[in-house]
Amino acid sequence: MNGGITELTIRTGSPYPVWVGDGLLRDCGELLARRTAPCTVFLVSDDVVAPLYMERTAQAFAAAGFTVVRHMFPHGEAHKTPETLMQLVEHMAQAGLTRADIAAALGGGVTGDLTGFAASVYQRGIRCVQLPTTVLAAVDSSVGGKTAVDLPAGKNLMGSFWQPFAVICDCETFATLPPAVYADGLAEAVKYGVLCDPALFARFEGFSRGDATADLIARCISIKEQYVTGDETDHGKRQFLNLGHTPAHAIEKCSGYAVSHGSAVAAGMVLMARTSERLDYASEAFSDRLAALLARFGLPTHTDFTARELSDAAVSDKKRRGDTLTLVMPRAIGDCVLVPVKMEELERIFEAGIDG
Amino acid sequence: MNGGITELTIRTGSPYPVWVGDGLLRDCGELLARRTAPCTVFLVSDDVVAPLYMERTAQAFAAAGFTVVRHMFPHGEAHKTPETLMQLVEHMAQAGLTRADIAAALGGGVTGDLTGFAASVYQRGIRCVQLPTTVLAAVDSSVGGKTAVDLPAGKNLMGSFWQPFAVICDCETFATLPPAVYADGLAEAVKYGVLCDPALFARFEGFSRGDATADLIARCISIKEQYVTGDETDHGKRQFLNLGHTPAHAIEKCSGYAVSHGSAVAAGMVLMARTSERLDYASEAFSDRLAALLARFGLPTHTDFTARELSDAAVSDKKRRGDTLTLVMPRAIGDCVLVPVKMEELERIFEAGIDG
Repeated sequence: MNGGITELTIRTGSPYPVWVGDGLLRDCGELLARRTAPCTVFLVSDDVVAPLYMERTAQAFAAAGFTVVRHMFPHGEAHKTPETLMQLVEHMAQAGLTRADIAAALGGGVTGDLTGFAASVYQRGIRCVQLPTTVLAAVDSSVGGKTAVDLPAGKNLMGSFWQPFAVICDCETFATLPPAVYADGLAEAVKYGVLCDPALFARFEGFSRGDATADLIARCISIKEQYVTGDETDHGKRQFLNLGHTPAHAIEKCSGYAVSHGSAVAAGMVLMARTSERLDYASEAFSDRLAALLARFGLPTHTDFTARELSDAAVSDKKRRGDTLTLVMPRAIGDCVLVPVKMEELERIFEAGIDG
Repeated sequence: MNGGITELTIRTGSPYPVWVGDGLLRDCGELLARRTAPCTVFLVSDDVVAPLYMERTAQAFAAAGFTVVRHMFPHGEAHKTPETLMQLVEHMAQAGLTRADIAAALGGGVTGDLTGFAASVYQRGIRCVQLPTTVLAAVDSSVGGKTAVDLPAGKNLMGSFWQPFAVICDCETFATLPPAVYADGLAEAVKYGVLCDPALFARFEGFSRGDATADLIARCISIKEQYVTGDETDHGKRQFLNLGHTPAHAIEKCSGYAVSHGSAVAAGMVLMARTSERLDYASEAFSDRLAALLARFGLPTHTDFTARELSDAAVSDKKRRGDTLTLVMPRAIGDCVLVPVKMEELERIFEAGIDG
């Protein structure tokens, strides 16, 4: 293995390991067997990832003594629905899964969110293992326990907080990602640098696809861990992870979800950086540096939606509590603050970022 | 008010109050306002309970400054489904509920389970207030945080652990219950006496419908609290609450859910009591005393299903972990023990109780 395995511990209510390395899908059975007696693994994947990685993953679990039941669903955010969730849960019931068994999500964020949610509600909760195969899932959705499906009224409106039992991240799988999907994950990865780690940000400035990623991925996850620990349900410091996400969710919604999450986060972070400078939160001009890095990765750094359109869309933001929303204001690379704002101020705030 | 209000505290992760008394639906707004700032209350009821109690409940919330949104669904266990759940959750989204708002369940166990589950997954969880209007919901399902819907493969197979924010139990509402529904709740109430309180059991032996219930209900809830505290997710002492429930769930399933939960629990408790005597767990013969009390309440004390049919049905019991199931064996009124058994022993155990 190239560089071996990095093991991190996510110190939530019930701590769990994250294993990061190259080729780990071949070792996933052995890794899981360190943590549990043999049981049934309900292995979920979509129709893009399954042909690439399901066979080797199922074989690795079986070789370690697990019984494997496979479940496949059509790929894409359009299928992150209550209907797909119910098919998953009903298959779990038909397969006779008990509370001693484990669901495993092999794929990107949609697969992880769906499988995690299904695991959290099947028989009121069984264990879930995340096997992320995209950069976005690796650095963001597979760790931290947020699960969800979309509703007609909005994205991720139905879900749960359900921490995984283990996360096994095989960075070799990123090699098969289309360029746009690969870049999508880099937006969330860069976010960690902006939040609290100027050195990480600088490493991304020297990074090109093809360079080893395991170390960078592990660093991102370890930063995420710091924000999730002690605030699993998003009432305090975990809100920092929302940097760029208020405009991003609005951009996604305004586009009818044609704009991907990472692209929206990239544009949203630049928007917030420009707002921050305009409103004198930023200690120095840094949005150009942020925009340059994201542009180099092929990510968008602006949005064509108006401040009015974005603020209207933000009314259905899950983070809203009554008429207040907490924004993350970047002040410099590695330095952000939380700022609660009234919903009626939002248009002006977005306006500042779009004009900025 | 007759006898005033009893306030109990359920000491789960986040403690919550249970208020028990007569006429409390008229005070529910004022009681809730002790615990939270005004917000939207999403008030859920079925088409049997709504005509009786929704208006006064909505008015009481409104009078205390809450905004009320009403939701009604067709009554009965047949509607405790993913479809009804989704209608509920999508209505919450359409109504623009935020994480600062509250869902309220006005009704019996089906309403409480559905609403609690919807609250636990809408935006990954909002607060839920339980307003039980049946004896069964008052002493059992409204307290302790178990929520669920049924799947084709079995009852309560999809749900969550989600503790309520408050429980307001108006014992006056029991007056409108049909006799069979009233009696149904007494089975679970008697269970608490068998579990750990011979004095409570004796009080039920002197109880007739029309007698004041608030004190008895409060005592039952306070016993439930002892078993739930420290074991919210059913891995330890909470399993005692399962007394009679392994055969009960099997009876319900074998009957195609024509046998009600309380009736099944009554028959299940007597079956387990007889098993216990046959297997020499019982320190003295007591199943006749238990059967006599339940029969006086109009509850069944035996089942026509065979031990084979019941043990086959128990294969899909949520409590099963791999090939093991933990049974609650009553040894005397007020004295029970947990006994893990292998699935293949179950038929013989049921056989002993049916023959006993």
